[in-house]
Amino acid sequence: MQIRVTRKALSEGLALMERVIPSRSSNPLLTTLKVDVTDAGLTLSGTNLELDLSCFVPAEVRNPQPFIVPAHLFAQVVRNLGGELVELERTGQEITVRASGSDFKLQTGDLGAFPPLRFPDETHLSLDAAELARALGSVRYAASNEAFQAVFRGIKLEHRGDLVRAVASDGYRVALRDFPGSGDGRTLIIPARSADELVRVLKDGQARLTYGPGLLTVTTDRVRMNVKLLDGDFPDYERVIPREIKLQFTVPASVLQDAVSRVAVLADKNANNRVEFLVSGGTVRLTAEGDYGRGHDTLAVEQSGSQPAMSLAFNARHVLDALAPIEGDVQVSLSGSTTPAIFQSGDYQAVLVTLRV
Amino acid sequence: MQIRVTRKALSEGLALMERVIPSRSSNPLLTTLKVDVTDAGLTLSGTNLELDLSCFVPAEVRNPQPFIVPAHLFAQVVRNLGGELVELERTGQEITVRASGSDFKLQTGDLGAFPPLRFPDETHLSLDAAELARALGSVRYAASNEAFQAVFRGIKLEHRGDLVRAVASDGYRVALRDFPGSGDGRTLIIPARSADELVRVLKDGQARLTYGPGLLTVTTDRVRMNVKLLDGDFPDYERVIPREIKLQFTVPASVLQDAVSRVAVLADKNANNRVEFLVSGGTVRLTAEGDYGRGHDTLAVEQSGSQPAMSLAFNARHVLDALAPIEGDVQVSLSGSTTPAIFQSGDYQAVLVTLRV
Repeated sequence: MQIRVTRKALSEGLALMERVIPSRSSNPLLTTLKVDVTDAGLTLSGTNLELDLSCFVPAEVRNPQPFIVPAHLFAQVVRNLGGELVELERTGQEITVRASGSDFKLQTGDLGAFPPLRFPDETHLSLDAAELARALGSVRYAASNEAFQAVFRGIKLEHRGDLVRAVASDGYRVALRDFPGSGDGRTLIIPARSADELVRVLKDGQARLTYGPGLLTVTTDRVRMNVKLLDGDFPDYERVIPREIKLQFTVPASVLQDAVSRVAVLADKNANNRVEFLVSGGTVRLTAEGDYGRGHDTLAVEQSGSQPAMSLAFNARHVLDALAPIEGDVQVSLSGSTTPAIFQSGDYQAVLVTLRV
Repeated sequence: MQIRVTRKALSEGLALMERVIPSRSSNPLLTTLKVDVTDAGLTLSGTNLELDLSCFVPAEVRNPQPFIVPAHLFAQVVRNLGGELVELERTGQEITVRASGSDFKLQTGDLGAFPPLRFPDETHLSLDAAELARALGSVRYAASNEAFQAVFRGIKLEHRGDLVRAVASDGYRVALRDFPGSGDGRTLIIPARSADELVRVLKDGQARLTYGPGLLTVTTDRVRMNVKLLDGDFPDYERVIPREIKLQFTVPASVLQDAVSRVAVLADKNANNRVEFLVSGGTVRLTAEGDYGRGHDTLAVEQSGSQPAMSLAFNARHVLDALAPIEGDVQVSLSGSTTPAIFQSGDYQAVLVTLRV
């Protein structure tokens, strides 16, 4: 077998695989990469048991044969090569990797032992890949990394008529983004870490979704991914979204971000990074206080609503997280000093609980 | 007291201080910053007991008064401020920090308790600051971070007629760089970590050196630094520099670097990252071998010397370290398969032991 492939294409494919395939494992088979070869090119595939990934790399091929190599070593070798073109050749139990001046021989693994990965062919639903990635990326921060309840470690995809909603919550905050797309009403919960990988591989074009038992398959022109879904009842987050808004203010998100970052330096890390907001007369005055002093910052905002002033407190870290996905203005809607607040921009909403006054 | 200072100048000064002043210490006084104030500006000073640093920041001042603040907190507050100008005002036991829209009050510490830092005024020797920084920066990698003998954790400055030599060694390799400068023949050993800070603060102009008991003071227009020196006999490194060169080759340092990095991916980390060099007929062939395969790389070089070919092995990590300070060509001088080799460029030399064949 002989393969000629550009270093760039092969490196890019391997970089995707490297993020999924573990570099160490009690089961060494999981650290390997399977390369399926056809006349059109290479299909790289690997798994971390939560997520199976496969990625196509076009190449010139003679006498196609599949092989298995240590994933991270192969990726490092290819990344460091000189020149534009890489030649791969199978010689006995070794794969020879050749590029200008370099010549590597890597041992191959046992093809029969590699776990069988299957990617279904049918499509149940097709979504805009960039929109899906943006929605998952916008709400991901609100999923917990360590929550006791598994569903808090996931992002729920909900079908609501001609909209799809991505929503995540850790019990203290909710983040959601809606985007156009219609489905069959099924909802599913994607583990946040697998969502991170989806965000990374979804670029443009269509993402074709296939539902299997406890499994979601996402297919694009470049990659296919099986994601193990989370099981469980996602909390009724709509219950915490306040309906009766008493005061609203609008300000460029970056201005609020800078000001909160500024005073948060003094906020007490043992008291939830508490930052107080006093909204009145078209200004927001922020205050934080800690062991070494206190900080104030005053911002001009566009204020509206039935109540002329309100004072409330947030965890500064949560406010900064909520603002991060927003470009342009944020509209902050307050329902009271002790009830949740909404930070909104377009189809994106973050709902934050307030800290006790 | 009132102070007006540009945010940029104050931030830059504080950034230097932050690297020296510990953020945590069993002695909380060490985490504070002293600010001495004159009509001309602020002199920031702090210490980590190995190194005292003081740094001048020009400012407009009324009613100068010294004060003490938590160093890292103050630096973080100033860094995050908006606008160009910062106002500082002393009010009772607090320092008020004001800038567009922000207003911070920081508690001040007890002036009397701050350790007295003294920077001598006389100058024993004046060196080009950039040359000194370059020499220290070029050889620093060869100093050990953890050697049993303290002198191996230092960089020796030697006066040799109208040259100054910076030299470091960890017993397996020697790095040295000469630069113009004359002194009174005294040699001194600077701890490598303090040398890192010297490299960071020395920019251009003259560095004025003052010798004290076990102490070196370095003064520039911007900063003053007391460095505690290491005591002990630096090894006779000249003994290991080979005199009789049998084969030499010259190649762009970056080409050799890339090739060694490439094959080093396969080198066995448990066998000193061994990379073999076979020099012959105007080429260097590099080979590394590990558990998963082996790699070769072949480079064209300019070869000279009495011996037509030589085979030897190095620790790839050490070769890459030795090449890092070199721009342009490296001349590699070999004395034999089992005796040290010299990697040289201009006034810089690295001497590496070979690994057993």
